[in-house]
Amino acid sequence: MRVIPLKSRVVKRGDDLVGLLLDSIEAAGESLDDGDIVAVADKVIAHVKGRIVDYSSIKPSEEAVKLAREAELEPGFAELVLEHSDLVIGTAYRTILTIKDGVLVANAGIDHKNAPGGHAALWPEDPNREAEEIRLEILRRTSRRVGVIVVDSRLAPLRRGTTGFALGISGFKGVRDFRGGRDLFGNRIYVTMMNVADELASAAHLYMGEAAELTPFVLIKDPPVELGDFDPELLKISPEECAYFKPLYSKLASKLR
Amino acid sequence: MRVIPLKSRVVKRGDDLVGLLLDSIEAAGESLDDGDIVAVADKVIAHVKGRIVDYSSIKPSEEAVKLAREAELEPGFAELVLEHSDLVIGTAYRTILTIKDGVLVANAGIDHKNAPGGHAALWPEDPNREAEEIRLEILRRTSRRVGVIVVDSRLAPLRRGTTGFALGISGFKGVRDFRGGRDLFGNRIYVTMMNVADELASAAHLYMGEAAELTPFVLIKDPPVELGDFDPELLKISPEECAYFKPLYSKLASKLR
Repeated sequence: MRVIPLKSRVVKRGDDLVGLLLDSIEAAGESLDDGDIVAVADKVIAHVKGRIVDYSSIKPSEEAVKLAREAELEPGFAELVLEHSDLVIGTAYRTILTIKDGVLVANAGIDHKNAPGGHAALWPEDPNREAEEIRLEILRRTSRRVGVIVVDSRLAPLRRGTTGFALGISGFKGVRDFRGGRDLFGNRIYVTMMNVADELASAAHLYMGEAAELTPFVLIKDPPVELGDFDPELLKISPEECAYFKPLYSKLASKLR
Repeated sequence: MRVIPLKSRVVKRGDDLVGLLLDSIEAAGESLDDGDIVAVADKVIAHVKGRIVDYSSIKPSEEAVKLAREAELEPGFAELVLEHSDLVIGTAYRTILTIKDGVLVANAGIDHKNAPGGHAALWPEDPNREAEEIRLEILRRTSRRVGVIVVDSRLAPLRRGTTGFALGISGFKGVRDFRGGRDLFGNRIYVTMMNVADELASAAHLYMGEAAELTPFVLIKDPPVELGDFDPELLKISPEECAYFKPLYSKLASKLR
């Protein structure tokens, strides 16, 4: 496969996202083909949809003040995180660890990078729907059947640095299922699935970066994935089912009760 | 960048790994250039180095029997995992969650997939040294300066399916550091680093798969990374420093004391 970074300008509220994307593809001397994957940074969606919030004027609750002190964050920002979290797990330096929309993520996915001072960018309200809308608009304008990923980044336990993950997807099979198959030696495979959506998002994120890259789009040609209509929620797993989270979570739940 | 899968045959103990790799590159009609990244599946190293263990004959300890019952694994396999773990965190279906060499991973990285029945493949003894040896042997035979990744896969909390990660690296900067820089709006960036090594490993893993793919090598051309001599241990972070793990770990540690 080829992974092609697409530069664009700084976007603003109300901009035509798909128009900018198609311009970027043309400017890069590329074309869009059936079967391609288009990766879009979640931050560019926040800017176009006006999901940039002034947190400096938010009055923090007592809990937000406590979390802000622990994490060395601004109280208004902590309040914003609290309001947008489904569950707060704890704090680390400049991080309130949360679960938001089934994703374990710092600060409920809210980012003050690449937003004006005192402001922060929120996740899309429904990232899979955003991916679907972009995919359908591409289809309408170009007749091309592509897959779309909305990419954000996050940390992994005990690893330094962020990696891209698929916050929202549309139009392709995000999980490759090996269960019931056989390995090279004919052994039955029990539990293995591959999260190809997160792997494609990681490949795209190599170019999107974390600072002033101005690369909100990445085009992936000949990706080894199956396109079509698949449930994007398959990428998520509940804490009770999760092989990594369950051992920690169940001990925590029982000890903290 | 281009991500190119390289097929090979089933390898056996004592095979010339770099010879097989160079043959695969030629068979694919590609060449190796300075600045390329070569990704090698950890499993192929286990086979070449003879790190395939017959666990069916291992006498399990009492703790292994208990863990095996909880996780629905074979007791000999659980004993092997215990022996190779630095810390056992808990269990889930067919998973003993462990920390091994600073990595949070299922079953201490020991895999019964793609090993003969009753046998399992161990991680390389020193994955970064394996990557270094492969890199230096490529340099010796071809005079090409490349980066090398040893790729394994693992789960991420609350996500379905595995993603590739960089178990060992050599010859490139695995972490891109944005600290002290400025974002698009001139805000100072505090904590952001990017784990480019894991992102490249994820891109490679899309082709390595989890079953009978026979794709032990992946060639990445024009990767957006800096080649040279960097500390591979920078990819790892201690539980106390980890923004995701610390909130869980510290609560656990204090409650379980």
